[in-house]
Order: sequence, then C-alpha cells, then structure tokens
Amino acid sequence: MQDFCARLLCGPDSIAFVEQPSYDRTVTVLRRAGAEVVGIPLEADGLDVDRLEKLLKDGKRPVLLYLVADFQNPSGIVLSAEKRLRVVALARQYGFWIIEDAPYRRLRYRGKELPTLLSLAPDRVLFMSSYSKLISPGLRVGYVVSPPALSAELAKMAEDTYINPSYFNQAIVYEFIQRQWLEPHIAQLKALYHPRLDAMLSALEHHLSGLATWTRPEGGFFVGVTLEAPVAADDLLSEARAANLVLTDGRGFFANGDGDRFVRLPFCALTLSEIEEGIARLGAVVRGLSE
Amino acid sequence: MQDFCARLLCGPDSIAFVEQPSYDRTVTVLRRAGAEVVGIPLEADGLDVDRLEKLLKDGKRPVLLYLVADFQNPSGIVLSAEKRLRVVALARQYGFWIIEDAPYRRLRYRGKELPTLLSLAPDRVLFMSSYSKLISPGLRVGYVVSPPALSAELAKMAEDTYINPSYFNQAIVYEFIQRQWLEPHIAQLKALYHPRLDAMLSALEHHLSGLATWTRPEGGFFVGVTLEAPVAADDLLSEARAANLVLTDGRGFFANGDGDRFVRLPFCALTLSEIEEGIARLGAVVRGLSE
Repeated sequence: MQDFCARLLCGPDSIAFVEQPSYDRTVTVLRRAGAEVVGIPLEADGLDVDRLEKLLKDGKRPVLLYLVADFQNPSGIVLSAEKRLRVVALARQYGFWIIEDAPYRRLRYRGKELPTLLSLAPDRVLFMSSYSKLISPGLRVGYVVSPPALSAELAKMAEDTYINPSYFNQAIVYEFIQRQWLEPHIAQLKALYHPRLDAMLSALEHHLSGLATWTRPEGGFFVGVTLEAPVAADDLLSEARAANLVLTDGRGFFANGDGDRFVRLPFCALTLSEIEEGIARLGAVVRGLSE
Repeated sequence: MQDFCARLLCGPDSIAFVEQPSYDRTVTVLRRAGAEVVGIPLEADGLDVDRLEKLLKDGKRPVLLYLVADFQNPSGIVLSAEKRLRVVALARQYGFWIIEDAPYRRLRYRGKELPTLLSLAPDRVLFMSSYSKLISPGLRVGYVVSPPALSAELAKMAEDTYINPSYFNQAIVYEFIQRQWLEPHIAQLKALYHPRLDAMLSALEHHLSGLATWTRPEGGFFVGVTLEAPVAADDLLSEARAANLVLTDGRGFFANGDGDRFVRLPFCALTLSEIEEGIARLGAVVRGLSE
C-alpha cells in the first residue's frame, strides 16, 4: 500500500517529508518512486512542527508527509494533540498529502488515545493500517482510507499490479471481526505486551543509565534508544553480533545519513527474561564502545 | 511478480519486447516501469521470430522479451518447439532476458507438451507461474524461477515492497500439493474445460464463418478472434454491450495501437449453452457491423 501511494503521488522531481528517524522501508519505497526524502526531526511529543513550518515557508514543497502518529516506528513516540492540529493545518495551507500509517494505534498499554489525523482532515489524509499486528502478519491484510480524489487512481494502481488482494485472507479477517474476536484478542495482546514494555524500560534504567537516552512509549512495539557516546554503526552492529544480539541498523531510519547512535528495541516478541538478558548485553556492548 | 521483474529490469530508456497481441496488464506494468514496449506479431505457431531477429539485427536492444509460450493470453497460441530454440539462442546472442509467463501451461486439453524456455536456457529465462488457474485465484500464490544473477535483487525488491507474501496461503498450496490433490484437480479442470473449448470452436464455425478468423488452441483459457471487416473497437464494444455481451477491449492487447478487430474469448467460466448463446450474439453483432 505504501508502494502504491508512493508511486501514485511521487515522481522524479517530488519531495517527500518523513519523520527522522522514520520507518526504513518507507524511506526505501519513497526513494524508489523517485522522491527526494527529507527527514524532519522527532521531539518527545512527535514531529518538530516548527521545523516543518520553516521548511514550508522557505519554499520546500513536499507532495506528502509520511508519519506514524501513534507509537512511531522506530521510536515509539506519539504525536501530541496540538501538533496534530498544526500538521493538518499546514497540509491544508500548503496542499500536501499526509500519509498516516497507524499499525500500532490500537496497541496502547496506558494513557489516553488521541484523534487520528484522518478524523481531523479526511480531505488531506491517507490513513493506512493493517491486521498484521492485531491478528497475524502471515495474512497480509491491510487497508487505506483515502480522500475520494485519490481512491480511483489508487485502486487502479493496485489492480494493474496484483489484480486483486487475497479474498480468502480478507474473508478470514472479516469472520474474525464478525465473531467479535478482535477486541478480546487486542486485550490479550495488551496484557502480554504491557509487562514487556515495562521490563524493557526498567532494564534500560538498570543497564544503560548515563550511557543513553530513550523514549518512554505508552504502547506499540518499539523503544527508541540514542547512545550518548559517538559510535560508528558498523562497530555497534558487529560488537552486538559478537554478543549474540541482533540489532537493526539505525542508519536505515535516518533519511539524512545519521543514525549511527540510534537503536530500535522491539520488545513484543521477547519474554521478560530475554528482555533483561538482552539489555544487559547491550549495556555491556555500549560500555565497551564508550571506553 | 511481473511488476517486480519490470521494475528490476526496465528503466526510463529501456526497451521491452512483447507478443502482439500480449497480456494487457503486462503492457501496462512495463510502461509504468518506464519501458518503451514494442510488440512483435504472433503467427499461428507463436512469435514471428524472423521479425524478432530483424529488430535485433537492426539495432533494437531490448532488456527483456515477455511471452506466454503456452496457450498465450489473449490468443491461445503455443510457441512451436523450433521457435523456442531460436528465441533462446537470440536471447543468448543479444543478451536480453526472457520472461516466460506460464499460468496456463498445465491446462493442455489435447496435443503434446513442449519444453519450457526455462529448461532450454535457465541462464536467460525468468519463469513465472501461479496457482491462480490451478487451485484458486483468491489465494494469490505464485512464483518466479530466476537465474541466480537476479534472485537476490528480485527478493529484495519484493521484501522492500510487501515484507513477505502470505505464508498462510503458501501453506494452503503446500498442503494441497502434499496431499496429492493437485494432479487430480488439474484432471478435473481439464475434463470441465475441454468440452467448453470445443463448444467455443464449433460455435465460432457456426456463427462467424466468413466474418472472422480465429485460433484453435489446444489448451488454456482463450480463443483469439480477428474480425474480417474493418470495425472500430468502440462501435464493437457498444454494440456488444447492447446485446448484453461483455467484451474486453482488444486495443489493450496491442502495444502499437492496433487491436480494433481483435476479440479475446474466454471459454472456461461459461457453460456450454452460454457459449453457444454468446457466440450467436457475437455473430449477430459482427454481421450488423459488417453491413
């Protein structure tokens, strides 16, 4: 779906704004569609909207802004309510599309839900989500809610590419929801993941205090860690590998070439003891590189 | 898969050869990838290889030749054994890739199977097929057999786009085959489709003799019909619609802008009486336009 949106909206001379860090696959897909990808830094309450506004005032004209407003990939950050309003106002003023990618939105473990960007500006927002994180990634069922102006072209792009999605998998998702299994299943996932998030945060406190700063998400899959010491990503990755820790390359998340000191920590698929053990090893690796 | 192959192999200045007529979606996908699409006419025994050779000798340098060697879409034609050898020899000599699309190959109702192009030149051929015509189109499970030189890039293109295909659907296909249901199922499909092909051919004989020529396929889904009288596709389509006949626009299959007189007739999904009735109506429409 991101690929279809990217190819529909972007051409060789277009500019796409993303959060920095952003989802690495999206950066790849936007570049492949020909766009110049410009990263806008994240703050604790989401996108640096002052910076977004300055870029627009300085004459940068993006066709789209891609963001994950809820429990961002890779940082776990949530875009604040005030910033949501400002972002949609700017999209209207400067005429760019917002792609709101919301796969983690329903996985909130504490705190209060904020309105989607889609609800604030259905005329400017392509909202996409999927059942990959809520039912099963093996099904590959997702959806886009698109402004009417783009729906027909988007559907044609999809049809020209894969004729149709798997009706069988869509039927499975439909049945899952019809039988009212989705809400209890989400509750179950939250009960499973919430303690893992807490374990991750307390392990970080224990093993990386003074060596790094990190986000404190209220949901989702990821905690974003920024190391204090200047390290080279290649050293970090190879030292981690030597300690039997598999890290994703932080540089993939930074459209501008940074990211050496950024580490994305996914906590959902690990047990509490694996989290404790993994962060202990990460602490040792980072201490080793800081010396 | 066609989209991945097209994007991997074609760029803005590249040339892609296709059969003429060819599968309309492929022409769209190749153009979208930036290629100039050149159609090479079909003869009763497949691609006009003399014409292919002449284009190559004249300096046209395609990155790929896309063809459906078995029961071609939209014509039903099969590429002869001698021509298969000549095509792969030319691919080696001039260094282009062959995309052999083979979704209908297993649906042969009579006559003898010919070797795949893949078996003749695994170094030059990307062979693709799917279970859409053999098990269910709703599953969307297909595959590419690629020369080692391209596999890694092709896999990365796919992964960057959709992360992974549906494992669940792949597991269904795997089970279907493991339980040895596939071969009996194909036999059942043949028993169902063979009489429909024969009914189509005899209805054409009955209702369109003198008004058109057509292919006499030994398998697959389609009979390709070429009308004798010069007609405009728009007239043909609207007259057919008025007779409650839904035809696919023949022009979509011709990369060079022809196709007004071409009609693709799919026979697999219709009952014998629907086929007889449909071709009778087509005959009446064509007679009306020829007067």
